[in-house]
Amino acid sequence: MKKITTAEAADALRAQDNILILCHAHPDGDTLGSGYALCRALLAMGKHAAVLCEDPVPRMFAFLCDGMPQADFEPDYVVAVDVATLKLMGERVGAKYGNRVDLCIDHHFTNSGYAESLLLDDTAAAASEIIYALLQILGVSITPIIAECLYVGVSTDTGCFRYSNVTSRTLRIAADMLDLGADTARINREVFETKSRPFARLERMALNSVETFFGGLFATVTVMQAMFRESGAGEDEFDKIAAIPRQIEGVLVGASIREQKDGTFKVSVRTNPPMNAAEIAAQLGGGGHPGAAGCTLELPLDESKKALRTVVEDALRKAGKL
Amino acid sequence: MKKITTAEAADALRAQDNILILCHAHPDGDTLGSGYALCRALLAMGKHAAVLCEDPVPRMFAFLCDGMPQADFEPDYVVAVDVATLKLMGERVGAKYGNRVDLCIDHHFTNSGYAESLLLDDTAAAASEIIYALLQILGVSITPIIAECLYVGVSTDTGCFRYSNVTSRTLRIAADMLDLGADTARINREVFETKSRPFARLERMALNSVETFFGGLFATVTVMQAMFRESGAGEDEFDKIAAIPRQIEGVLVGASIREQKDGTFKVSVRTNPPMNAAEIAAQLGGGGHPGAAGCTLELPLDESKKALRTVVEDALRKAGKL
Repeated sequence: MKKITTAEAADALRAQDNILILCHAHPDGDTLGSGYALCRALLAMGKHAAVLCEDPVPRMFAFLCDGMPQADFEPDYVVAVDVATLKLMGERVGAKYGNRVDLCIDHHFTNSGYAESLLLDDTAAAASEIIYALLQILGVSITPIIAECLYVGVSTDTGCFRYSNVTSRTLRIAADMLDLGADTARINREVFETKSRPFARLERMALNSVETFFGGLFATVTVMQAMFRESGAGEDEFDKIAAIPRQIEGVLVGASIREQKDGTFKVSVRTNPPMNAAEIAAQLGGGGHPGAAGCTLELPLDESKKALRTVVEDALRKAGKL
Repeated sequence: MKKITTAEAADALRAQDNILILCHAHPDGDTLGSGYALCRALLAMGKHAAVLCEDPVPRMFAFLCDGMPQADFEPDYVVAVDVATLKLMGERVGAKYGNRVDLCIDHHFTNSGYAESLLLDDTAAAASEIIYALLQILGVSITPIIAECLYVGVSTDTGCFRYSNVTSRTLRIAADMLDLGADTARINREVFETKSRPFARLERMALNSVETFFGGLFATVTVMQAMFRESGAGEDEFDKIAAIPRQIEGVLVGASIREQKDGTFKVSVRTNPPMNAAEIAAQLGGGGHPGAAGCTLELPLDESKKALRTVVEDALRKAGKL
């Protein structure tokens, strides 16, 4: 693995054709925004390009892919965007392309270095920030739809500019995208201010599952498969459920515990300073960012909860909070 | 009333001393951020200045006022910030200073023109945007705390950059404030990402009061005084309750109906395009912005709800939605 600069990545892309862009599985706004912004730019440069993702695109992001080509060709060059590790690529995509990624463009400092070349900027709040810099070097005209791709990327990875990863660069990129024709008002409304009726039901159930521990420093929300079935909600909007525990005043560590279809539990940890979510998740075999991280627990619910509680208690103690 | 430019307002302030700055009653982040940013700037210019507000400052904004002088002097010049009409000034403050406001700095196109001079920019998402331009002309150094005042103003009036009033100027001002030392991550966390435990209880009750009408185009949430008592929540955080109905997928008009201590009902209307909240509220004797407006109904609950429903039905019909 060789770390490269944005200019070197631009040179590499200029020299290539038949480019396949890989997103991470369970795609979010940043991996899709990055992927489709890059794809649209490469197409505008007269190249053949497409985006591939293990899982379907959530409905609210479908507009990003409008009119985009299918990934039905044998690529000469493979680019992964916002994919920190091969595992996150998903099983099928990872098996097919994992060992032949030419370029990875990412902002996770945990990037495992699986690609031939790595363009990493871990000061970027979103991979889309890096893509914007890349498109500027490539001299591609940022059309309104490319601006919307990039706006979706920077806004979704920052909770619409709320999280601590936001920098002035993030906000100025958003301003540029608005000026370049992104319908940010519509995107904000559809992505951040709209709940489906099933999600509204799931949210009500989730609120009733909130538990707090250690004098209110740790809070959890637990969502079982039955609650998804009963509410009719999909797992797309789960991020907003995962945010609930940390939002309660005084909570330093919030966790959502979500039963998966295979019976394991996906835990999403969100912290307020000085607690570090990535460190907590790492203790349980996971990883992520300082403010938001995750892991998967393969124990029964009670034992999963207990394992999580033990790790959080330890972290709170080390931080002098207990 | 004479409309003046930012440069003229700066000249007027330079020539004055003993300046009293008035915020609107039930103060929000923008009136307080504008008021305290201006006050701190005038103090730095060596002038005597203070901020006055009818109602107490909500706890989450208390840091904006740290170390600020009391409004216990006879002012030579009175400035109102973000106060669209005299009524919004509150009873006592309005009675004492309403007829002698020298300068009003505002962004509401509904400003009633009660001041001697009016600096109005209705393209500004927040009055704080206008204050920033004013401070730049005054040549005042934007300290970190002034940057935090202005950041609180622009972020709170836009739902942290989500609402349709956000412009690229808004985002660039936020970027500038971050660069100038505003701890935007802490502010976002405390203002937008934190719920008090009483508020979390109120929110759960409010979610249970949601009603929808006209095939889901209109939704309401109803909060009675008993719910405030039972949850222990104050009215400070009510904005987030008022946002609930419009967030449900398909809703074009959302309204919160809040029983006030005197038994009347305060209605807050939020709309999605093409519906206009100000027009709906105006039919009921209120006013506001196209996306968010309000009115007070002095009828019993059932009749208040019915009056509201009738006006909304009419508006939906006129818009061709029914």
